[in-house]
Amino acid sequence: MKTVHIAIMGFGNIGVGTYQGIEINHDAIAAKTGLDLKVAKIIEIDIDRPRPVSPDRSLFTPDRMEVFQDPSIDVVVELIGGVEPATTFMIEALKHGKHVVTANKAAIAANYEQLTDAANEAGVLFRFEASVGGGIPVINAITTVLRSNRFEEVTGIMNGTTNFILTQMTQAGRPYADVLKEAQEKGFAEADPTADVEGIDIANKLSILISLCFGERVKIEDIPTTGMSGVTPEDIAQAKAEGKVIKMLASASRENGKIVCSVAPVRIGTDHPLASVSNEFNAIYLKGNILGETMLYGKGAGPLPTGSAIIGDIIDIATHTK
Amino acid sequence: MKTVHIAIMGFGNIGVGTYQGIEINHDAIAAKTGLDLKVAKIIEIDIDRPRPVSPDRSLFTPDRMEVFQDPSIDVVVELIGGVEPATTFMIEALKHGKHVVTANKAAIAANYEQLTDAANEAGVLFRFEASVGGGIPVINAITTVLRSNRFEEVTGIMNGTTNFILTQMTQAGRPYADVLKEAQEKGFAEADPTADVEGIDIANKLSILISLCFGERVKIEDIPTTGMSGVTPEDIAQAKAEGKVIKMLASASRENGKIVCSVAPVRIGTDHPLASVSNEFNAIYLKGNILGETMLYGKGAGPLPTGSAIIGDIIDIATHTK
Repeated sequence: MKTVHIAIMGFGNIGVGTYQGIEINHDAIAAKTGLDLKVAKIIEIDIDRPRPVSPDRSLFTPDRMEVFQDPSIDVVVELIGGVEPATTFMIEALKHGKHVVTANKAAIAANYEQLTDAANEAGVLFRFEASVGGGIPVINAITTVLRSNRFEEVTGIMNGTTNFILTQMTQAGRPYADVLKEAQEKGFAEADPTADVEGIDIANKLSILISLCFGERVKIEDIPTTGMSGVTPEDIAQAKAEGKVIKMLASASRENGKIVCSVAPVRIGTDHPLASVSNEFNAIYLKGNILGETMLYGKGAGPLPTGSAIIGDIIDIATHTK
Repeated sequence: MKTVHIAIMGFGNIGVGTYQGIEINHDAIAAKTGLDLKVAKIIEIDIDRPRPVSPDRSLFTPDRMEVFQDPSIDVVVELIGGVEPATTFMIEALKHGKHVVTANKAAIAANYEQLTDAANEAGVLFRFEASVGGGIPVINAITTVLRSNRFEEVTGIMNGTTNFILTQMTQAGRPYADVLKEAQEKGFAEADPTADVEGIDIANKLSILISLCFGERVKIEDIPTTGMSGVTPEDIAQAKAEGKVIKMLASASRENGKIVCSVAPVRIGTDHPLASVSNEFNAIYLKGNILGETMLYGKGAGPLPTGSAIIGDIIDIATHTK
């Protein structure tokens, strides 16, 4: 049995989900993998916020450098979110020889090379399965078994809020503002829904997938992005009359050697695999030159599904390192 | 650049697809991974059968032991099919220190422990992504990033022939015998379709998934299996009237500590993610205790999609070994 000493940096919803996932499945993971996953430190200032879990107070520290300099810590899980200071903190952790796992799409989209370079230079691993599609194992698929392909296309429904709103608008013929309000009341949409409905969250994820599928960097400011707040019930009815549905799609392909990409509400035929992906679900559709089509579907958000991907990354790191 | 010397054992459709996939994507794989994949030997008696590729005749040998004893060979790809002599040959290769990749569901379902034990004892890797779902990266997902979960259920559409027949019966209201005949004419069904339509092929795949998801062995003779040749247009019409579709499903779950499993034509609601998986496509639906639901969809057969998975396994082996 090998003990993996984990530091969680940022103890919000996803940090709590990761902690809970480790608690719930500690013994099952130990039985399957021989790994004893142990949350050894939680880097967080706010100890007393009400949370559904109660880690021992001695695990909390506000001092990240103390943790990065602690030789017993194997993996740092960055869950602060946002580009900065998260990027700086991750690079510090990598430079101190810590493997880093993150769910932070914004930081990776902005600083992919800096982060992967820092990991390579330090001889440690940097993993981010949870940054796209939550619990859906898409990044692992692209970076392992599907590497046998040249990717021709990646298209995804990668935001649960906008997919929920469009699904409800389609099924009930209701206007955008009305459904948004309901989604906010149910906790499916943020009080300020801009990052979701205007496609910014999705563009971050698409930038990451472009890096992985095509080996090229397209920054989010270079991804043509159209929000879905302008979609009307009339647009949806017209699409339906054409045998189509409107989905908020992120898409990239290589055409004549150049990456063509966009984030926008798009009409797709009801026979497309993405057409039946409803409500809060996400899916990523890939075309490989020898594989043909594949699609990976699941919950793109939520503390436990996201924790599933983070813990999967931790296990993967621990099984591939001493 | 690291050269990986590959021996393909059995040069039928899948062997040819693997060879073609390596030819087509050799340079792309080298650029992405630093690996120079090289088919160094083809273990096959029938050199002159017409095939869409023409490897140099010097690659062919009828003598597997010559290849297993050749220290320059890194990986043996077993594509003979069937339980024996394939199992014996794979164990021989493993004992000679060769990593083994296979698409052979029947051999793994029958001899999972013997094969994995032989690999462990020899300190080499044994990979079989292509044995379930063709190019769909489901085995890798279960054995890597999704290990963070206790699996609660695995349900799949894992046979393109039966899914094609049921889809056509459903869409056109045609009887089984009629659609089977068309599928045979189009090459979607074998002249003797027994292994497909009676669920034997599917039971082999389910046995493998049960081993991986639940860590328990259920041999195919212990999986209650009902073929789909008895499904009538009336059954399908009645399902439709209930808002359901009939799909040939393989399913396993753990109930009160015991594995409950079956292969059978089953009615599922049209809102189930598997309901919209049509024609020759396959999909595997998984429930994990922290992940929730996920589904992986794609082409479950065919030389190039299956080759995609085999080459993915070869790359994975080469990147995780010296």
